[in-house]
Parts: sequence; structure tokens; C-alpha cells
Amino acid sequence: MNKIKNNCNRSKCPITNTLDIIGDKWTLLIIRDMDFFQKKQFNELLNSHEGISTNILTARLKKLMETGLVKKQVYQENPKRYEYTLTSAGKTLRPLLVEMVKWGGEYIEGSYAPSKEDIKKILGE
Amino acid sequence: MNKIKNNCNRSKCPITNTLDIIGDKWTLLIIRDMDFFQKKQFNELLNSHEGISTNILTARLKKLMETGLVKKQVYQENPKRYEYTLTSAGKTLRPLLVEMVKWGGEYIEGSYAPSKEDIKKILGE
Repeated sequence: MNKIKNNCNRSKCPITNTLDIIGDKWTLLIIRDMDFFQKKQFNELLNSHEGISTNILTARLKKLMETGLVKKQVYQENPKRYEYTLTSAGKTLRPLLVEMVKWGGEYIEGSYAPSKEDIKKILGE
Repeated sequence: MNKIKNNCNRSKCPITNTLDIIGDKWTLLIIRDMDFFQKKQFNELLNSHEGISTNILTARLKKLMETGLVKKQVYQENPKRYEYTLTSAGKTLRPLLVEMVKWGGEYIEGSYAPSKEDIKKILGE
């Protein structure tokens, strides 16, 4: 698997580099919808509960494709339709998503907290 | 431990709630510096390699105190000096930081990648 390029160059710290790629309020929600809910089409991704805007979704998908975490493919000709899916690099983000599920579920008021069994299922254990 | 309040109310998803609290390019770097490098004073936090600005550091510390992840205490009188430390809630973010260390180190070009032994030490295993 090719390594992800990060042009921010803030430092060599892996936490910093990770935040350069996914440190915002929306990118990981798109990854979540693709990974856990099998959303592929632009309109499906647009209809998440959090109400992402068309502009932000377009910009985030562009960046995700540039970094190689998401790929865009034609799934229908005439009229041409595209779908977005995680690359093998994009799928490696699952443990980070699961850590957020655990942390948010346990420590933030009002968060849905999945059971340990749910988390095991997500992790395929 | 009191649960963290999140006033964004985008959804009940624990990933969303986590991103509402730490989904930006700087917040977790401040937590990193406090947790892994024992930085406590404003100027120490200002001097991270990534070059955080005074304004952003002030704003992020304010939000971290409001959410209860960081506390501010007087450590010297005359002249009065303050230090910032992680609360017990703030310390619960370590597994998420470690997951970013692993992911960034393994998948992002140019990231420092700690050994498994280093990571075990960080986790106190």
C-alpha cells in the first residue's frame, strides 16, 4: 500500500500528520458513512444526520481522493453516475473510528454508547 | 467522573460528538504536549514544533477548560502565574492519541513511527 502524502509539513509527529489529514469536523463522518453504513453515492453522503453542506462534502471528497483514502468510480453510463468508496488505505482508519466510538460513547453526555458486543462486531472479532 | 457536555447537538453519534470536542488541527496537540511532554505553562505550550499562534492556543485552552478536559491553577503568587493540566477526563484521551500515533506512523509518509516498545511504554503496559 502506498503511503499517504501530507503536504502540510507542520512536524514529523504522527499525531500532527494524522490531524493534517482528518483533523476537522466532517472528514471522519464521511469515512464513517462509507465504512459502517456502506454509503457510496454523493446524495447518500449528503443525507447524513449531521447535515453536511454540498460545498463541504465536495471539498472533503476532493481532499480524500487526493490523499488516496477514497476513490471515485463510474457505476452507471448514460447518464454517467459515480460512486465513492474507501481505498485499502481508507479502510485502515477503522480502529481510529472505533476509538472515537468508545471515547465519545463513554465520556460525552448524550452520545449513543454501543455495547462491547457491537464494537466487537464492528472490529470483526 | 462527570460526563463532558457537548452543545453542538449535531447528532447522538459518538464519533460526531468526539469530533465536536477535538475535531480540529490543534486541540489534540495541546493534549499531547500536556500528556506526553508534561508541558504546563502557556509559553511551553506556545513553543511546540508546529508553531501554534497565541490566539489559537488561548481559544483552544478556553474551550478545553469549558469542556472540563483541562484545568487552570495558580502555581505562583506575586506575580501570579498559572499552569494548565489535564483533568481526569482529559487523561482519558490517551488511547485516542496512541491510535493516531499508530495510524500516522504507519500510513503517512514522513511521519515518525515509534516502535511497538515505545507505544507499550506510552500505554503503561
